[in-house]
Amino acid sequence: MKSPDQRRRSDRAHSAILTAAAAAVAELGYARTTIEGIAARAGVGKQTIYRWWPSKGAVVLDALIAEQPDVEWPDTGDLTADLRLVLRATIAAFADEDTSATLRALMIDMQHDPALSESVLTRMLRPQLAATRRRLVAAQEAGQVAAGLDLDVAVEVIFGPIYHRWILRTHPFDEAYADELTAVVVRALAPPAP
Amino acid sequence: MKSPDQRRRSDRAHSAILTAAAAAVAELGYARTTIEGIAARAGVGKQTIYRWWPSKGAVVLDALIAEQPDVEWPDTGDLTADLRLVLRATIAAFADEDTSATLRALMIDMQHDPALSESVLTRMLRPQLAATRRRLVAAQEAGQVAAGLDLDVAVEVIFGPIYHRWILRTHPFDEAYADELTAVVVRALAPPAP
Repeated sequence: MKSPDQRRRSDRAHSAILTAAAAAVAELGYARTTIEGIAARAGVGKQTIYRWWPSKGAVVLDALIAEQPDVEWPDTGDLTADLRLVLRATIAAFADEDTSATLRALMIDMQHDPALSESVLTRMLRPQLAATRRRLVAAQEAGQVAAGLDLDVAVEVIFGPIYHRWILRTHPFDEAYADELTAVVVRALAPPAP
Repeated sequence: MKSPDQRRRSDRAHSAILTAAAAAVAELGYARTTIEGIAARAGVGKQTIYRWWPSKGAVVLDALIAEQPDVEWPDTGDLTADLRLVLRATIAAFADEDTSATLRALMIDMQHDPALSESVLTRMLRPQLAATRRRLVAAQEAGQVAAGLDLDVAVEVIFGPIYHRWILRTHPFDEAYADELTAVVVRALAPPAP
Protein backbone atom coordinates (compact mmCIF):
# COMPACT_ATOMS: atom_id res chain seq x y z
CA MET A 1 0.00 0.00 0.00
CA LYS A 2 1.09 3.56 -0.68
CA SER A 3 1.69 5.95 2.17
CA PRO A 4 -0.24 9.28 2.11
CA ASP A 5 3.02 11.00 1.09
CA GLN A 6 3.56 8.64 -1.82
CA ARG A 7 -0.04 9.13 -2.92
CA ARG A 8 0.36 12.92 -2.86
CA ARG A 9 3.55 12.72 -4.93
CA SER A 10 1.83 10.38 -7.33
CA ASP A 11 -1.20 12.68 -7.73
CA ARG A 12 1.11 15.63 -8.31
CA ALA A 13 3.05 13.75 -11.01
CA HIS A 14 -0.19 12.61 -12.69
CA SER A 15 -1.52 16.12 -12.86
CA ALA A 16 1.84 17.61 -13.97
CA ILE A 17 1.89 15.13 -16.86
CA LEU A 18 -1.60 16.14 -18.02
CA THR A 19 -0.71 19.83 -17.86
CA ALA A 20 2.54 19.17 -19.75
CA ALA A 21 0.74 17.14 -22.43
CA ALA A 22 -1.81 19.92 -23.01
CA ALA A 23 0.95 22.56 -23.18
CA ALA A 24 3.07 20.47 -25.55
CA VAL A 25 0.18 19.87 -27.95
CA ALA A 26 -0.85 23.53 -27.87
CA GLU A 27 2.71 24.68 -28.57
CA LEU A 28 4.01 22.04 -30.99
CA GLY A 29 0.89 20.41 -32.38
CA TYR A 30 0.02 16.76 -31.88
CA ALA A 31 2.39 15.31 -34.48
CA ARG A 32 5.52 16.92 -32.97
CA THR A 33 4.57 16.12 -29.38
CA THR A 34 6.48 13.14 -27.94
CA ILE A 35 6.32 11.15 -24.71
CA GLU A 36 9.93 12.30 -24.06
CA GLY A 37 8.92 15.94 -24.48
CA ILE A 38 5.95 15.58 -22.13
CA ALA A 39 8.15 13.84 -19.54
CA ALA A 40 10.76 16.62 -19.72
CA ARG A 41 8.13 19.36 -19.28
CA ALA A 42 6.50 17.52 -16.38
CA GLY A 43 9.85 16.83 -14.68
CA VAL A 44 9.27 13.07 -14.58
CA GLY A 45 10.84 10.06 -16.29
CA LYS A 46 9.29 8.47 -19.40
CA GLN A 47 8.60 5.34 -17.35
CA THR A 48 6.33 7.32 -15.04
CA ILE A 49 4.16 8.22 -18.04
CA TYR A 50 4.12 4.65 -19.33
CA ARG A 51 3.02 3.44 -15.89
CA TRP A 52 -0.34 5.20 -16.45
CA TRP A 53 -0.73 5.56 -20.22
CA PRO A 54 0.09 3.11 -23.02
CA SER A 55 0.58 5.69 -25.78
CA LYS A 56 0.88 9.36 -26.69
CA GLY A 57 -2.74 9.27 -27.90
CA ALA A 58 -3.94 8.03 -24.51
CA VAL A 59 -2.18 10.74 -22.46
CA VAL A 60 -3.28 13.50 -24.88
CA LEU A 61 -6.86 12.21 -24.70
CA ASP A 62 -6.75 12.47 -20.90
CA ALA A 63 -5.34 15.98 -21.15
CA LEU A 64 -8.17 16.97 -23.51
CA ILE A 65 -10.77 15.50 -21.17
CA ALA A 66 -9.24 17.30 -18.18
CA GLU A 67 -9.45 20.63 -20.07
CA GLN A 68 -12.97 20.00 -21.32
CA PRO A 69 -15.75 21.96 -19.69
CA ASP A 70 -18.51 20.04 -17.95
CA VAL A 71 -20.38 17.89 -20.48
CA GLU A 72 -23.66 18.46 -18.63
CA TRP A 73 -26.14 20.60 -20.63
CA PRO A 74 -27.67 23.77 -19.28
CA ASP A 75 -31.36 23.38 -18.53
CA THR A 76 -33.05 26.77 -18.45
CA GLY A 77 -36.35 25.20 -19.47
CA ASP A 78 -35.96 26.77 -22.93
CA LEU A 79 -34.64 24.10 -25.32
CA THR A 80 -33.92 26.57 -28.13
CA ALA A 81 -31.81 28.81 -25.89
CA ASP A 82 -29.90 25.83 -24.44
CA LEU A 83 -29.30 24.30 -27.87
CA ARG A 84 -28.02 27.61 -29.22
CA LEU A 85 -25.55 27.91 -26.34
CA VAL A 86 -24.24 24.35 -26.71
CA LEU A 87 -24.03 24.50 -30.52
CA ARG A 88 -22.20 27.84 -30.42
CA ALA A 89 -19.67 26.40 -27.95
CA THR A 90 -19.25 23.15 -29.91
CA ILE A 91 -18.83 24.98 -33.21
CA ALA A 92 -16.36 27.43 -31.65
CA ALA A 93 -14.27 24.45 -30.46
CA PHE A 94 -14.18 22.98 -33.98
CA ALA A 95 -13.38 26.44 -35.38
CA ASP A 96 -10.29 26.66 -33.15
CA GLU A 97 -7.40 25.54 -35.35
CA ASP A 98 -5.33 23.99 -32.56
CA THR A 99 -8.23 22.00 -31.10
CA SER A 100 -9.31 20.93 -34.53
CA ALA A 101 -5.81 19.79 -35.52
CA THR A 102 -5.43 17.80 -32.28
CA LEU A 103 -8.80 16.10 -32.81
CA ARG A 104 -7.93 15.22 -36.41
CA ALA A 105 -4.60 13.73 -35.34
CA LEU A 106 -6.34 11.74 -32.62
CA MET A 107 -8.86 10.44 -35.17
CA ILE A 108 -6.02 9.21 -37.40
CA ASP A 109 -4.33 7.42 -34.47
CA MET A 110 -7.67 5.82 -33.55
CA GLN A 111 -7.72 4.02 -36.91
CA HIS A 112 -4.62 2.02 -35.94
CA ASP A 113 -5.16 1.78 -32.22
CA PRO A 114 -8.35 0.01 -31.13
CA ALA A 115 -7.65 0.65 -27.42
CA LEU A 116 -7.37 4.40 -28.05
CA SER A 117 -10.47 4.26 -30.22
CA GLU A 118 -12.43 2.54 -27.47
CA SER A 119 -11.24 5.10 -24.95
CA VAL A 120 -12.19 8.10 -27.12
CA LEU A 121 -15.65 6.57 -27.47
CA THR A 122 -16.08 5.59 -23.83
CA ARG A 123 -14.47 8.55 -22.14
CA MET A 124 -15.11 11.47 -24.50
CA LEU A 125 -17.91 10.89 -27.01
CA ARG A 126 -20.41 8.66 -25.18
CA PRO A 127 -20.58 10.92 -22.08
CA GLN A 128 -21.35 13.91 -24.37
CA LEU A 129 -24.05 11.97 -26.21
CA ALA A 130 -25.54 10.68 -22.96
CA ALA A 131 -25.66 14.21 -21.51
CA THR A 132 -27.42 15.43 -24.67
CA ARG A 133 -29.92 12.60 -24.40
CA ARG A 134 -30.69 13.55 -20.77
CA ARG A 135 -31.45 17.13 -21.81
CA LEU A 136 -33.73 15.83 -24.59
CA VAL A 137 -35.60 13.54 -22.19
CA ALA A 138 -36.37 16.60 -20.05
CA ALA A 139 -37.45 18.56 -23.16
CA GLN A 140 -39.64 15.66 -24.28
CA GLU A 141 -41.29 15.59 -20.84
CA ALA A 142 -41.83 19.36 -21.13
CA GLY A 143 -43.54 18.90 -24.52
CA GLN A 144 -40.78 20.67 -26.50
CA VAL A 145 -39.75 17.49 -28.33
CA ALA A 146 -42.20 15.26 -30.21
CA ALA A 147 -43.50 12.53 -27.90
CA GLY A 148 -42.68 9.49 -30.03
CA LEU A 149 -39.31 10.69 -31.35
CA ASP A 150 -36.36 8.26 -31.07
CA LEU A 151 -33.89 10.29 -28.99
CA ASP A 152 -30.85 8.48 -30.40
CA VAL A 153 -31.86 9.82 -33.81
CA ALA A 154 -32.42 13.25 -32.23
CA VAL A 155 -28.88 13.29 -30.79
CA GLU A 156 -27.46 12.38 -34.20
CA VAL A 157 -29.46 15.13 -35.89
CA ILE A 158 -27.84 17.62 -33.48
CA PHE A 159 -24.18 16.54 -33.86
CA GLY A 160 -24.13 14.67 -37.19
CA PRO A 161 -24.30 17.81 -39.35
CA ILE A 162 -21.34 19.35 -37.46
CA TYR A 163 -19.19 16.23 -37.96
CA HIS A 164 -20.16 16.16 -41.62
CA ARG A 165 -19.04 19.77 -42.13
CA TRP A 166 -15.84 19.20 -40.14
CA ILE A 167 -14.84 16.05 -42.04
CA LEU A 168 -15.51 17.53 -45.48
CA ARG A 169 -13.96 20.93 -44.54
CA THR A 170 -16.19 22.78 -46.92
CA HIS A 171 -17.99 25.48 -44.93
CA PRO A 172 -17.31 27.99 -42.18
CA PHE A 173 -17.71 27.22 -38.47
CA ASP A 174 -19.13 30.50 -37.28
CA GLU A 175 -21.90 31.77 -35.08
CA ALA A 176 -24.30 32.27 -38.00
CA TYR A 177 -23.90 28.58 -38.78
CA ALA A 178 -24.53 27.61 -35.14
CA ASP A 179 -27.71 29.68 -35.08
CA GLU A 180 -29.01 28.35 -38.42
CA LEU A 181 -28.37 24.78 -37.26
CA THR A 182 -30.14 25.52 -33.96
CA ALA A 183 -33.24 26.68 -35.83
CA VAL A 184 -33.24 23.62 -38.10
CA VAL A 185 -32.76 21.21 -35.19
CA VAL A 186 -35.53 22.82 -33.14
CA ARG A 187 -37.92 22.34 -36.06
CA ALA A 188 -36.74 18.76 -36.54
CA LEU A 189 -37.45 17.85 -32.92
CA ALA A 190 -40.60 19.86 -32.33
CA PRO A 191 -43.95 18.20 -31.67
CA PRO A 192 -46.51 18.54 -34.48
CA ALA A 193 -48.31 21.91 -34.42
CA PRO A 194 -51.59 21.57 -32.48
CA MET B 1 -2.14 9.39 -81.57
CA LYS B 2 -3.77 6.05 -80.91
CA SER B 3 -5.38 4.07 -83.71
CA PRO B 4 -9.05 3.06 -83.25
CA ASP B 5 -7.87 -0.51 -82.54
CA GLN B 6 -5.47 0.62 -79.85
CA ARG B 7 -8.19 2.74 -78.29
CA ARG B 8 -10.59 -0.22 -78.21
CA ARG B 9 -7.97 -2.43 -76.56
CA SER B 10 -7.22 0.32 -74.09
CA ASP B 11 -10.92 0.80 -73.20
CA ARG B 12 -11.30 -2.95 -72.75
CA ALA B 13 -8.29 -3.13 -70.43
CA HIS B 14 -9.53 -0.14 -68.43
CA SER B 15 -12.91 -1.68 -67.89
CA ALA B 16 -11.47 -5.17 -67.14
CA ILE B 17 -9.33 -3.60 -64.41
CA LEU B 18 -12.33 -1.91 -62.77
CA THR B 19 -14.34 -5.15 -62.84
CA ALA B 20 -11.37 -7.06 -61.42
CA ALA B 21 -10.87 -4.50 -58.65
CA ALA B 22 -14.52 -4.70 -57.59
CA ALA B 23 -14.43 -8.51 -57.63
CA ALA B 24 -11.17 -8.65 -55.65
CA VAL B 25 -12.47 -6.31 -52.95
CA ALA B 26 -15.78 -8.17 -52.71
CA GLU B 27 -14.02 -11.53 -52.38
CA LEU B 28 -10.95 -10.69 -50.29
CA GLY B 29 -11.80 -7.42 -48.62
CA TYR B 30 -9.91 -4.20 -49.19
CA ALA B 31 -6.89 -4.97 -47.00
CA ARG B 32 -6.03 -8.24 -48.79
CA THR B 33 -6.59 -6.81 -52.27
CA THR B 34 -3.34 -5.98 -54.09
CA ILE B 35 -2.45 -4.31 -57.38
CA GLU B 36 -0.82 -7.62 -58.42
CA GLY B 37 -4.03 -9.52 -57.69
CA ILE B 38 -6.14 -7.05 -59.67
CA ALA B 39 -3.72 -7.23 -62.60
CA ALA B 40 -3.83 -11.05 -62.60
CA ARG B 41 -7.65 -11.12 -62.56
CA ALA B 42 -7.85 -8.51 -65.32
CA GLY B 43 -5.24 -10.30 -67.45
CA VAL B 44 -3.01 -7.22 -67.69
CA GLY B 45 0.42 -6.30 -66.36
CA LYS B 46 0.86 -4.22 -63.17
CA GLN B 47 2.30 -1.41 -65.27
CA THR B 48 -0.97 -1.11 -67.18
CA ILE B 49 -2.74 -0.38 -63.89
CA TYR B 50 -0.09 2.12 -62.79
CA ARG B 51 -0.44 3.93 -66.12
CA TRP B 52 -3.95 5.05 -65.06
CA TRP B 53 -3.99 4.86 -61.25
CA PRO B 54 -1.34 5.86 -58.70
CA SER B 55 -2.48 3.54 -55.89
CA LYS B 56 -4.74 0.69 -54.84
CA GLY B 57 -7.06 3.23 -53.19
CA ALA B 58 -7.44 5.13 -56.47
CA VAL B 59 -8.38 2.09 -58.56
CA VAL B 60 -10.78 0.78 -55.91
CA LEU B 61 -12.40 4.22 -55.71
CA ASP B 62 -12.99 4.17 -59.47
CA ALA B 63 -14.43 0.65 -59.22
CA LEU B 64 -16.82 1.85 -56.49
CA ILE B 65 -17.88 4.84 -58.56
CA ALA B 66 -18.45 2.63 -61.63
CA GLU B 67 -20.71 0.32 -59.57
CA GLN B 68 -22.57 3.18 -57.94
CA PRO B 69 -26.08 3.86 -59.14
CA ASP B 70 -26.82 7.26 -60.64
CA VAL B 71 -26.31 9.96 -58.01
CA GLU B 72 -29.23 11.96 -59.43
CA TRP B 73 -32.23 12.09 -57.06
CA PRO B 74 -35.70 10.98 -58.07
CA ASP B 75 -38.10 13.90 -58.38
CA THR B 76 -41.69 12.69 -58.10
CA GLY B 77 -42.75 16.09 -56.78
CA ASP B 78 -43.18 14.52 -53.31
CA LEU B 79 -40.09 15.37 -51.24
CA THR B 80 -41.00 12.97 -48.41
CA ALA B 81 -41.35 10.01 -50.78
CA ASP B 82 -38.09 10.85 -52.59
CA LEU B 83 -36.19 11.33 -49.32
CA ARG B 84 -37.49 8.01 -47.98
CA LEU B 85 -36.29 6.21 -51.11
CA VAL B 86 -32.83 7.78 -51.06
CA LEU B 87 -32.35 7.35 -47.31
CA ARG B 88 -33.43 3.69 -47.45
CA ALA B 89 -30.93 3.04 -50.28
CA THR B 90 -28.13 4.95 -48.54
CA ILE B 91 -28.72 3.21 -45.22
CA ALA B 92 -28.91 -0.20 -46.95
CA ALA B 93 -25.49 0.49 -48.53
CA PHE B 94 -23.98 1.29 -45.11
CA ALA B 95 -25.71 -1.80 -43.65
CA ASP B 96 -23.97 -4.02 -46.20
CA GLU B 97 -20.89 -5.36 -44.43
CA ASP B 98 -18.68 -5.58 -47.51
CA THR B 99 -19.49 -2.07 -48.72
CA SER B 100 -19.07 -0.71 -45.22
CA ALA B 101 -15.69 -2.45 -44.73
CA THR B 102 -14.43 -1.13 -48.08
CA LEU B 103 -15.50 2.42 -47.23
CA ARG B 104 -13.84 2.25 -43.80
CA ALA B 105 -10.60 1.00 -45.34
CA LEU B 106 -10.73 3.77 -47.93
CA MET B 107 -11.27 6.34 -45.15
CA ILE B 108 -8.14 5.09 -43.34
CA ASP B 109 -6.05 5.31 -46.54
CA MET B 110 -7.36 8.84 -47.13
CA GLN B 111 -5.73 9.99 -43.89
CA HIS B 112 -2.28 9.25 -45.33
CA ASP B 113 -2.93 9.99 -48.95
CA PRO B 114 -4.03 13.56 -49.73
CA ALA B 115 -4.44 12.79 -53.46
CA LEU B 116 -6.82 9.92 -52.70
CA SER B 117 -8.62 12.08 -50.17
CA GLU B 118 -9.10 14.82 -52.74
CA SER B 119 -10.39 12.31 -55.26
CA VAL B 120 -12.90 10.76 -52.87
CA LEU B 121 -14.19 14.27 -52.18
CA THR B 122 -14.23 15.45 -55.78
CA ARG B 123 -15.39 12.30 -57.52
CA MET B 124 -17.64 10.58 -54.95
CA LEU B 125 -18.88 12.83 -52.17
CA ARG B 126 -19.27 16.25 -53.79
CA PRO B 127 -21.35 14.94 -56.74
CA GLN B 128 -23.72 13.25 -54.23
CA LEU B 129 -24.02 16.42 -52.18
CA ALA B 130 -24.53 18.56 -55.29
CA ALA B 131 -27.28 16.22 -56.55
CA THR B 132 -29.00 16.43 -53.15
CA ARG B 133 -28.78 20.19 -53.25
CA ARG B 134 -30.41 20.27 -56.72
CA ARG B 135 -33.36 18.22 -55.43
CA LEU B 136 -33.70 20.61 -52.48
CA VAL B 137 -33.66 23.66 -54.73
CA ALA B 138 -36.62 22.15 -56.62
CA ALA B 139 -38.40 21.38 -53.32
CA GLN B 140 -37.74 24.90 -52.09
CA GLU B 141 -39.25 26.31 -55.30
CA ALA B 142 -42.26 24.02 -54.76
CA GLY B 143 -42.73 25.37 -51.24
CA GLN B 144 -41.81 22.07 -49.51
CA VAL B 145 -38.63 23.49 -47.97
CA ALA B 146 -38.56 26.70 -45.92
CA ALA B 147 -37.80 29.65 -48.18
CA GLY B 148 -34.83 31.11 -46.30
CA LEU B 149 -33.16 27.82 -45.35
CA ASP B 150 -29.43 27.49 -46.09
CA LEU B 151 -29.39 24.42 -48.35
CA ASP B 152 -25.81 23.48 -47.40
CA VAL B 153 -27.05 23.07 -43.84
CA ALA B 154 -30.06 21.13 -45.16
CA VAL B 155 -27.79 18.67 -47.01
CA GLU B 156 -25.75 18.14 -43.83
CA VAL B 157 -28.89 17.51 -41.79
CA ILE B 158 -29.80 14.74 -44.24
CA PHE B 159 -26.45 12.90 -44.37
CA GLY B 160 -24.68 14.01 -41.16
CA PRO B 161 -26.76 11.81 -38.84
CA ILE B 162 -26.01 8.74 -40.98
CA TYR B 163 -22.24 9.38 -40.90
CA HIS B 164 -22.43 9.94 -37.15
CA ARG B 165 -24.14 6.57 -36.61
CA TRP B 166 -21.73 4.82 -38.98
CA ILE B 167 -18.60 6.25 -37.37
CA LEU B 168 -19.69 5.51 -33.81
CA ARG B 169 -21.11 2.06 -34.75
CA THR B 170 -23.70 2.21 -32.05
CA HIS B 171 -27.08 1.68 -33.68
CA PRO B 172 -28.73 -0.44 -36.36
CA PHE B 173 -28.91 0.54 -40.03
CA ASP B 174 -32.36 -0.71 -40.88
CA GLU B 175 -35.45 0.47 -42.68
CA ALA B 176 -37.13 1.66 -39.48
CA TYR B 177 -34.14 3.95 -38.92
CA ALA B 178 -34.35 5.26 -42.51
CA ASP B 179 -38.03 6.05 -42.09
CA GLU B 180 -37.60 7.74 -38.69
CA LEU B 181 -34.78 9.86 -40.09
CA THR B 182 -36.92 10.76 -43.13
CA ALA B 183 -39.68 12.02 -40.85
CA VAL B 184 -37.25 14.07 -38.74
CA VAL B 185 -35.57 15.58 -41.80
CA VAL B 186 -38.88 16.51 -43.43
CA ARG B 187 -39.86 18.38 -40.27
CA ALA B 188 -36.45 20.05 -40.12
CA LEU B 189 -36.74 21.39 -43.66
CA ALA B 190 -40.43 22.22 -43.78
CA PRO B 191 -41.66 25.78 -44.12
CA PRO B 192 -43.37 27.22 -41.03
CA ALA B 193 -47.01 26.12 -40.72
CA PRO B 194 -49.27 28.78 -42.28
